[in-house]
Amino acid sequence: MQQGRTGPLRPTLEAVAELAGVSRATVSRVVNGGVGVRASLRERVQHAVEELGYVPNQAARTLVTRRNDAVAVVIAEPESRVFSDPFFAQQLRGISKELSSADSQLVLLLVEDTGDYQRVGRYLAGGHVDGALIFSLHQDDPLPAMARKVGMVTVFGGRPGWVGAESDHDLVYVDTDNRGGARLAVEHLVSLGRKRIATITGPLDQTSGVDRLDGYRDVLPYGDPALVAEGDFTQEGGGRAMAELLARRPDLDAVFAASDLMASAALRVLREHGRRVPEDVAVVGFDDQESVAAWTDPPLTTVRQDIEDMGRLMARLLLRRLAQEGSEVARPGSPTSVITPVRLVVRASA
Amino acid sequence: MQQGRTGPLRPTLEAVAELAGVSRATVSRVVNGGVGVRASLRERVQHAVEELGYVPNQAARTLVTRRNDAVAVVIAEPESRVFSDPFFAQQLRGISKELSSADSQLVLLLVEDTGDYQRVGRYLAGGHVDGALIFSLHQDDPLPAMARKVGMVTVFGGRPGWVGAESDHDLVYVDTDNRGGARLAVEHLVSLGRKRIATITGPLDQTSGVDRLDGYRDVLPYGDPALVAEGDFTQEGGGRAMAELLARRPDLDAVFAASDLMASAALRVLREHGRRVPEDVAVVGFDDQESVAAWTDPPLTTVRQDIEDMGRLMARLLLRRLAQEGSEVARPGSPTSVITPVRLVVRASA
Repeated sequence: MQQGRTGPLRPTLEAVAELAGVSRATVSRVVNGGVGVRASLRERVQHAVEELGYVPNQAARTLVTRRNDAVAVVIAEPESRVFSDPFFAQQLRGISKELSSADSQLVLLLVEDTGDYQRVGRYLAGGHVDGALIFSLHQDDPLPAMARKVGMVTVFGGRPGWVGAESDHDLVYVDTDNRGGARLAVEHLVSLGRKRIATITGPLDQTSGVDRLDGYRDVLPYGDPALVAEGDFTQEGGGRAMAELLARRPDLDAVFAASDLMASAALRVLREHGRRVPEDVAVVGFDDQESVAAWTDPPLTTVRQDIEDMGRLMARLLLRRLAQEGSEVARPGSPTSVITPVRLVVRASA
Repeated sequence: MQQGRTGPLRPTLEAVAELAGVSRATVSRVVNGGVGVRASLRERVQHAVEELGYVPNQAARTLVTRRNDAVAVVIAEPESRVFSDPFFAQQLRGISKELSSADSQLVLLLVEDTGDYQRVGRYLAGGHVDGALIFSLHQDDPLPAMARKVGMVTVFGGRPGWVGAESDHDLVYVDTDNRGGARLAVEHLVSLGRKRIATITGPLDQTSGVDRLDGYRDVLPYGDPALVAEGDFTQEGGGRAMAELLARRPDLDAVFAASDLMASAALRVLREHGRRVPEDVAVVGFDDQESVAAWTDPPLTTVRQDIEDMGRLMARLLLRRLAQEGSEVARPGSPTSVITPVRLVVRASA
């Protein structure tokens, strides 16, 4: 179990015990200072430690639990996006509060583009942090493999997209009920009597984008594909997608945008095209971002997820994993992934 | 060895030398400035560098001692402020670009409040970063002393406020011409014939706040103290100060706000009090923040400082200090502090 969690490259306490021909408890005592262990046994353990390249810090954690009192946060987006999308600020706020109250330092590793990931991997491997929170993963993102390779205890924000992620119990993530939320949004539009409901999706190389599109399709399984346009969670992408949809289907009477930023851009484009919201076109967003949804004109009907709370939860799960990592005995109640609930907030746009 | 440290994906100095058909020493000389290398050789090396996508800083590393290839950024403000004031995003953008192109990791250490500084000090002392950029210092801030105590090479954003800072040649900072900029703003208001010119200051425990107030007083040495209200660079503080000024001197006909965020709040409060801008009250800001100044109603006349460039400059000075730190011989041209110029951008508000 320890094996699985820390990656195959890391020798375990058990392996050291086996090679030295002693009990796990003896190894543990030796790497924690060797008090009360006969010199000959101590030497045998030390040889085995060296031979296997066992990293004693893992053991140190058994007593101290956390070595650096620091946690890395890696957002798989360019720095400019991290600072322009209030989603990340809100999630970081939750993480910062939680880590701060545990006296653990939040170390935000910023990148310009994917070319910088090698460097981030080196930093994670360098022993500067105890664990990592990684979010906004895209398909084929090398970050999770890097974190696993260096044995980094990790909690993900958003369900990782690789095959088997959902059934991997060693994988811990916090996600929102993306699919259920999208269903709520589209069902609301249907209940208003809208007939030609379009959607602006998130990036389809992210599970949040795919899941929200799945929710839309759950409600409208036979919808016209021309009513689906791919966005990227940014205002620019949302505005572009809205213009595309209007060109393809000028008769559309509703839009579900998979984020509030994209919805706010859609409102602007609709206004530029002389459409009244909600009279001509009803609009629903996703996020209920405090700095966006209530301030658009008209204020946005949207799917609320508690973003700050998701940040807190990620941090809390990671701190618990780190505490368990240090314990010798398996404990009941290992942290598992959490899907947080959503609800529809009805304002004026739909 | 270089190989091991940088990973197999990175082209090496050797590869460049081989492709260019020159020695390693020649490549090294070219990527470090090219002094004393024939133009034809220089060109061959440069072609090889481009073809292989060689990053010259790798070479600098062979000469220079930097262990972590990571730089800490500490902003002496709560995390919530860091993410709500676009000033910090812009400065971080410049820093991020510069560090990224030098393949150094930007490590942003976030804090909730001053109670977290001890922990930041521990992290800086822990050998996790090569140097630090510290900005938005307040008076009596313990961060500089902490950084000094652990021997951290540091560049400051904004002139530190303690006595002797200006003449301390070991102290390197990047600042904007705060006092000169404030003079430009107030002189502009005087040139428009305004007689009762108020100011909303920045926090007076920061040199940027004090210097901008000094610039205002340079132009209006005998001004009414009732025309001065202290703000804190935030919208809330700016709005509060504007309301105070209107209560004290309802006859005021101009306001110099020491930041664009405060100026935008002042515009809102003036509108709420039935004052037309600029007819009744002319308003000038400070920053020319891209996401603020051009988007207010009316667009803001303001003092432009190049915030992103200041970030770049801070990072560049730090990298140069780190390079010198590693060299055996003292070099001429040690980095010294830089004051960046400002200019007035006239839009509609004054």
